[in-house]
This record gives sequence, C-alpha cells and structure tokens, in this order.
Amino acid sequence: MQILVVGSVAFDTVKTPFGEATEVLGGSAAYFASSASFFAPVSVVAVVGEDFPLDDLQFLRGRDVDLAGIERRAGRTFRWQGEYGFDLNEAKTLETQLNVFAEFHPRLPEAYREHDVVFLANIDPELQREVLTQVSSPGLVAADTMNFWIQGKPEALRETLKHVQILLINDAEARMLAKEPNLVRAAKTILTWGPRSLVIKRGEYGALSFSDGGWFAAPALPLENVYDPTGAGDAFAGGFLGFLASTQNFDEANLRRAVIMGSVMASFAVEAFSLRRLEHLTYPEIEVRYRQFKHLAHFEDL
Amino acid sequence: MQILVVGSVAFDTVKTPFGEATEVLGGSAAYFASSASFFAPVSVVAVVGEDFPLDDLQFLRGRDVDLAGIERRAGRTFRWQGEYGFDLNEAKTLETQLNVFAEFHPRLPEAYREHDVVFLANIDPELQREVLTQVSSPGLVAADTMNFWIQGKPEALRETLKHVQILLINDAEARMLAKEPNLVRAAKTILTWGPRSLVIKRGEYGALSFSDGGWFAAPALPLENVYDPTGAGDAFAGGFLGFLASTQNFDEANLRRAVIMGSVMASFAVEAFSLRRLEHLTYPEIEVRYRQFKHLAHFEDL
Repeated sequence: MQILVVGSVAFDTVKTPFGEATEVLGGSAAYFASSASFFAPVSVVAVVGEDFPLDDLQFLRGRDVDLAGIERRAGRTFRWQGEYGFDLNEAKTLETQLNVFAEFHPRLPEAYREHDVVFLANIDPELQREVLTQVSSPGLVAADTMNFWIQGKPEALRETLKHVQILLINDAEARMLAKEPNLVRAAKTILTWGPRSLVIKRGEYGALSFSDGGWFAAPALPLENVYDPTGAGDAFAGGFLGFLASTQNFDEANLRRAVIMGSVMASFAVEAFSLRRLEHLTYPEIEVRYRQFKHLAHFEDL
Repeated sequence: MQILVVGSVAFDTVKTPFGEATEVLGGSAAYFASSASFFAPVSVVAVVGEDFPLDDLQFLRGRDVDLAGIERRAGRTFRWQGEYGFDLNEAKTLETQLNVFAEFHPRLPEAYREHDVVFLANIDPELQREVLTQVSSPGLVAADTMNFWIQGKPEALRETLKHVQILLINDAEARMLAKEPNLVRAAKTILTWGPRSLVIKRGEYGALSFSDGGWFAAPALPLENVYDPTGAGDAFAGGFLGFLASTQNFDEANLRRAVIMGSVMASFAVEAFSLRRLEHLTYPEIEVRYRQFKHLAHFEDL
C-alpha cells in the first residue's frame, strides 16, 4: 500500500543538554517519510522555499519516497527553533517562522490521488481536510494534531476527525481535546468522534493505544544516549503507519505490532540530531530493536 | 517467608481533584502491610501516639499481620497533609508533623529477628540501618528512600545501600541519587553501590526494573477512577515483596512477575482514599487484574 503524507519540511534549530544543531533538516513530513520508508512507498506533500536544499533529501529517493509533491515557492522555508531541558519530554519553542508555509494549500499530484494510506501530520485541520478531499477513497487515514489547533480551531478539528480512523497525539493533547483530565475517559470520548483507534504518545514513557480491540501499553526503550527528541512523534507515526501499510492487516494484534514499530523508530530518531540516525539506519537494526522491545516488556503468567 | 517492614503508621489528610479525606489511616508501613499481607505473613515495626486507634488496623490481623512491633508512645501520632492536582504523579506536601516519630528508634521484638525478608520503608537511612543490625541474616533486604534523605543524609544512605539488595524509588529520586540525568546511566551507577536490582516507580507510567538479568518495563493500568495516589508506592512495594516472599524465587522471570504484582496492588490502592480499597480487596480480584496487565502489555513477534 502506498502512503501519502502531508506535513512540513523545515529547517530546525535545536538545543538540548547534549548539544545543538542549527538550521538542520526537519519537519513532520521529513521525519515521517524517513521512518515510514523502511516499510512502504511514501509520497510527500509539503512546501519549501527557494533556500531549501532538496538534494539533502536524496537519501529518501533511494527508499522509494516520492518527493514530487514538495512544492517549491518563492520565499524562505518554514523554520522552527526550540530547546529542551533534562526533561526531554517537553520542547520549549523559541521561534516559529511560517514563511512559505503561511500560504500553503496542498495540491496533490494526480498520481497521489489513489493512495491507500494517508497521514495528516500536525498542520491546520482545514488543510488536513483539503488533502482528504483530493484523495479518492483512502483505506486508512491517520492524523496528528497539537494544542495550538485544539484550542484555536476546535470545530475544524472535530470536522476533520470525522474522517480520521487513527488519531496519534500525546496525553496532554488528549486531555485537552476531550476536556477531561482522566485519560481513559478522554480516550473514550475521542473514540465517539470518528477515530476507531487513539494512540497516545508519551515520549520516554512509551505509548498507549485505545480501540475496540482493547487497551495496549507499549514501553519506551530506556536509552543511554538521547540527543534530540525532535521529530520522535513523527518517526513514531512513520513506523506505525509504514508497518500497517506493508502488512495490510489492521486487526488488534497487528495494531499492537505497529505501535511497537512506531516506538522502535522513535527510539532511533532521538539518538541523533535531525534525520541523521534515520538516514543511516538499516532494516536489520530495526528487527533487532523490535526484539529488544519484546524482551523489555515480557513477563510470564502467574 | 516472613516479611518485616519498618516505616510509618500515620494520620493522613489528603485532597485530590476527586475528593478529600481528613486524618485517615495511612503511613508507609500501613500501606505496605495491607498490600503484602495478601501474599505472606508480615510483621510491622513502627510507632504511634496515644491518639492512634490500633483497632482500625484490626483487618490486618485477620491476614496474618503481626502488629506487636508497633510501639505506642506518649504524644501524638505522625501526621502528613498533602494535596494533588490533576497530575496525580506529584504530591504537594502541605504539612508534616513528626510527633512521636521524631524520637523513634526501632526496637525489634525477639520473634522478628529471624525474619527472612525485610522492607525498609522511606525513613531516615540511619534508622533503616538500626533495623538491619537487629535482624540475624535476612535473605532479602529491600528499601525505599526519598529526595529529603538523598540530599540531607547522602553518606548514611550510601552506607545503608551496601546492605540493600533491591532499591525501589521513583525516577526523579534515581536521577538525584546518582547525580545523572540519564535514567539508564543513573541505574547503572546505583547498581554499583550495593543493590542487585533497582525498581523505578513511575506512577501512571508504570515501572522499570534494572538488574543483571536485564531491563524490564511494566505498564500501569489506565484507570478510569483514581481517587488518591497516596501510598501507591508502598502498596507497590508490598505486592512486589509479598509476591517474592511467597514464591521464594528471585530469578529474573519471577522478579518481573513481582514488578507486575506490585503494579497490580498500586492500581488498587489508588482507587479509594486511605487503606479502604486494600482493606476490602480479595485475592481473586488480584488474579483478575494480573491477567488484565498481561493483556495490556502483550504483543506478538514480527
């Protein structure tokens, strides 16, 4: 199954307690595609300015990623600057420059309209819907969002959610979206709004998924070297959806494998700044790490 | 195997977003014993004032808990007052009255000196050591501690740790104790100081254990009704050590089962104020919940 992702391709400037990186490749669509491309073909819809070196994404073409949907416009590329303290779970945004993203209206190349799996990365929920109207009949739509849209465009977001089968957000966002401090009750509420599955990303605490098939708790791998958590959520979504697209099986057992695969890919993404770890990753490393997760979470019956 | 616990028996005044309770039964030893008593006989060493209604702990006697080691002294019982916000992971302490606890020096009844399993709840590390010198040759010593002792009595704590096989603390405490922000490196450091296993309690995010046998991540059960997280850590320790004492098997597979059993008991403790849920709990409910944890954490190989 072919995956379509719409999101940002950006320059990130990031500082963590373990180092810093200035104007490096980033953006939700770039992280997602770098991750998902280990599992299935990916087509990217995004916008960049004249200053963006698309050649630096060349490594993605070698993995069956179609970059033809990245529009190049006059002006500067989207830029994000952030900082993390020792609590790597929370980024402090220092600056966001929308630049060419401010006027972005995704237009899908003809060839993308028949794609089966769609990932709507964290962008304006109205743009997310603009994308959906251009896809004929996607088999699976997954989406991310954030506090900015939850608070700023609640109706548009609720409308988009009607067309989303899997929502991937963090726990604070789930609580805010449902206006309910208890996570279980928040999840139950959200599952009445469209999504069949809700995947809660919790950074170093792992992930939870709620669906008809039950609740699943995935651990995060304790890591000795975490350099930069930027993009971890999109790398998670890439592993999760890439795995589902490649196996074409959406039953509960496979959803759980997909959550672990998302966790695996996030665990790699944070091991280096920018896309570097995902760029140099190999599939055998992914398989080894999946087995590490299995060992990490395993316990016997009484 | 018989378990000896030294810790507090106290009056707690607690406020959470879901209600409040004034001067109710609490204390680390009370929570621990209420939990561990489902698995093994427990002897309690603690001190109370003249105002403490020991009859209210009567339910523990029916579960083979020996309260003869609870010394009654002139004066008032230890009191703790705290408040939780929607983030139930962190208590805000409003008041601590040591009262009779200020002069407490644990003296073990003769019959307790041959006990095999010792739990040193979160008290002054010097008192923890005073207890250990009174036990002949315990097969297993586990301990808890907190930031107050980590910062206030670091040398005494390090000395105590030499005699502790299993340390149970939360992640902030582990980082503070090892002076290392990365949890994996903090764990490795602590494991060179005496403990063979380190169990990191993370509240609603579950627990991690680090030992020679590997790393294990246990989930927490997402709960729809959490009323009061007070005592959850001690209920965890009670389930964990109670299970180990009853099975007399300290291999990695059984340690993992014990971590889950600790999580099971903590998940019950938070469902009501004070000891109420643990007082009215039954063993079949514990078994059902263990299976819920198993289902929650299960995923298949690739």
